Amino acid sequence: MPKHAGGGAREAALDGVFHALSDPTRRRVVERLGRGPATTSDLARPFDMALPSFLQHLGVLERSGLVTSEKKGRVRTYRLAPEPLERVDSWLDAQRAMWTRRLDQLDSLLYDLKEQQT
Amino acid sequence: MPKHAGGGAREAALDGVFHALSDPTRRRVVERLGRGPATTSDLARPFDMALPSFLQHLGVLERSGLVTSEKKGRVRTYRLAPEPLERVDSWLDAQRAMWTRRLDQLDSLLYDLKEQQT
Repeated sequence: MPKHAGGGAREAALDGVFHALSDPTRRRVVERLGRGPATTSDLARPFDMALPSFLQHLGVLERSGLVTSEKKGRVRTYRLAPEPLERVDSWLDAQRAMWTRRLDQLDSLLYDLKEQQT
Repeated sequence: MPKHAGGGAREAALDGVFHALSDPTRRRVVERLGRGPATTSDLARPFDMALPSFLQHLGVLERSGLVTSEKKGRVRTYRLAPEPLERVDSWLDAQRAMWTRRLDQLDSLLYDLKEQQT
């Protein structure tokens, strides 16, 4: 088993969020929903795509937790759920922290080497 | 065609980076490389996985641009290339900026409504 810091469920959730964001149509939908809720037809309008394919993209987004939807009568409205994006963000923050710490260590190593030479 | 801000190549690159990060083994490799360069066998060690499968993961990471590798004799060494992670980060920043602006607008709308009532 790979060793990792997070629990299995949290890891699986991150898989789904990264997968959902790996498609340009789905990223466009996330960008659109960042400006406010929208119905299925609002969301579909900018895309030259058959509705069933577009609905599959919405399904991937909803299963990843990035969007939620609610049906009133015949109209389904989608909203962005910011929590999964925050999860991606904290993973990236952790990587940056590690990366920066490493650069700092290289920096002080170089400094020490220079000190030893003088 | 979907309307989007970035160019086609930049979009495709983002697809590959998000796809590469959608797997826990590949995220572990990125985390490990954040602490410094490592050889194939260093990277493979923590995983209970057949080497060909593990090499496929490394291939996905390399094609996404997240890692680069160099072979000396029989040993291949991998390094993290931070630029693709920064690209993901700026996409997320843009989403957060939009999201925050929208919350601010809702805030001032609520404030205006309250002002009108008093």
